[in-house]
Amino acid sequence: MRSGPALPPRVTIREVGPRDGLQSEAPLPVEARARLIESLSATGVSKIEAVSFVSPKAVPAMAGAAEVWALVRPAPGVVYSALVPNRRGAEAALRAGGFASLQAFIAASDGYNTHNVGKTVEESLPDMADVIACGLDGDIPVEVSVSCAFGDPWEGDVPPERVAGLCARLLEMGAAGISLADTTGMATPTRVWSVLAGLRERLGDAATPSLHLHDTRGTALANVLAAMQTGVTEFDASVAGLGGSPFASAGSNGNVATEDLVHMLADMGIETGVDLDAMLAASTLASGLVGHPARSQVSRAGPRWRVAPEDWTIGPKV
Amino acid sequence: MRSGPALPPRVTIREVGPRDGLQSEAPLPVEARARLIESLSATGVSKIEAVSFVSPKAVPAMAGAAEVWALVRPAPGVVYSALVPNRRGAEAALRAGGFASLQAFIAASDGYNTHNVGKTVEESLPDMADVIACGLDGDIPVEVSVSCAFGDPWEGDVPPERVAGLCARLLEMGAAGISLADTTGMATPTRVWSVLAGLRERLGDAATPSLHLHDTRGTALANVLAAMQTGVTEFDASVAGLGGSPFASAGSNGNVATEDLVHMLADMGIETGVDLDAMLAASTLASGLVGHPARSQVSRAGPRWRVAPEDWTIGPKV
Repeated sequence: MRSGPALPPRVTIREVGPRDGLQSEAPLPVEARARLIESLSATGVSKIEAVSFVSPKAVPAMAGAAEVWALVRPAPGVVYSALVPNRRGAEAALRAGGFASLQAFIAASDGYNTHNVGKTVEESLPDMADVIACGLDGDIPVEVSVSCAFGDPWEGDVPPERVAGLCARLLEMGAAGISLADTTGMATPTRVWSVLAGLRERLGDAATPSLHLHDTRGTALANVLAAMQTGVTEFDASVAGLGGSPFASAGSNGNVATEDLVHMLADMGIETGVDLDAMLAASTLASGLVGHPARSQVSRAGPRWRVAPEDWTIGPKV
Repeated sequence: MRSGPALPPRVTIREVGPRDGLQSEAPLPVEARARLIESLSATGVSKIEAVSFVSPKAVPAMAGAAEVWALVRPAPGVVYSALVPNRRGAEAALRAGGFASLQAFIAASDGYNTHNVGKTVEESLPDMADVIACGLDGDIPVEVSVSCAFGDPWEGDVPPERVAGLCARLLEMGAAGISLADTTGMATPTRVWSVLAGLRERLGDAATPSLHLHDTRGTALANVLAAMQTGVTEFDASVAGLGGSPFASAGSNGNVATEDLVHMLADMGIETGVDLDAMLAASTLASGLVGHPARSQVSRAGPRWRVAPEDWTIGPKV
């Protein structure tokens, strides 16, 4: 018998480690990237963002998307997507073939959008329209990630109405869905509630977004809890907690770690379909590939249901 | 206007860094420990667990409690407590003088209690009765920490009814309050709800406990959110996230970091009285004293309201 607020019985996780996780690491060989995708495919995770068709000059670690993808043997039951910044990227993804959806992106704030792609939000909207049209032509749904939906590192707070207004325009353009991204880890539970309430007020329940949370300030799992309480049932997560902004603040947490998210949800009786041991094996592979320890907790402490050996010591404790 | 579930307007934080944080570190000079307590006293935090009158053989880092305490100039408005395992410890604390309360401890499970103090829970109860009586004699309230209230590393799950039953006995003995401890980070939000519901069913709202959460598996702030939703308004936290079990799993998070907790609550509009900048200064002092980086996120990333400089780069991001 569960006490407490209502929660969804099942949550969909989209693994973004091969894309968001690796994009700010030193470039890896295409074979290693394909191996990571296949390791993740074996975990039971529902969706994987596999590659990114962005300029290799802008994001060297994402170069060779088509080559990586050609090496991957897609697993049955797993839905693969590719990130695309514009029509050119979308066309490259369509040529590569085999993706169930494309993921475009635009920020909710000029501060971030300008730093990220050199255009204001308004200037980026035609790119979104272009990518969405390209997907419709190719019969592939295009979802859009709205970056900095919970705050912008240069502008500070981002009004929930502005996020809702942008989402409305993207859906009018034909976007198949919205992912709200806490790109630099500025969300807290009350902000999650405010932004989701703003979106619901403007667009109704049908527009319930997925959430892409970063753990930069330690709030990611609290934000997951807050979001589930208001009906969100899909979250991005990155194996080993890869991603985030290592340049800006050494040692900072990155994306919410898939293994930590899966572990918490499993203990709460919320189905994800992910086998935690398989995800921990993928985490070990990922941290080995990037050459630094995983930014996750369960990879260090083990799941709570692993019983300690009799001679285990936790040191002087209370 | 706040959307979402109701939350308390104000939360009390008890800083346990000088005690739980330092107890598993290499022993520090008494002067350094007093300096840390005074640095924390200047943050606006309501309560500080300053020292521990345990056997110096069992916990070398806590030796010299009376000497540390004698060096501290207590700050007005701050409530200081001392941890005591038994009557002998309680008497030493009373001799030292100046504490507003004593904190005794017992586990909810034999697995942990046996490893921690070499007795079953049943065998430890007379010690609790002894300490409480000693406090009553000396006119000082004795609160009791119930360790492993959300799970035991050797036994696994701990039934909520058992936790409630133990709390009932402690309150009957005259305990002034209960702190439920997630000693090895096994709590998740649904477990928090279950244990608190069990306690309320047995003892009513008057017995609402404070919570002592560890972030061993990344769930501490999610557990804080869950607990606040069911009426908990007091939390232990440790500056720089010190504490936990570094012997068992290198790199694991320890106690929930005070600066991360204060940061999240501040952004949620929940008062703690703590000045975050002062707490970050105490965190810098603490990590310098113990000689390793803080196990907190806000100490690395900075508060979300600190605007990034124009030339800040977050690397390739979406």
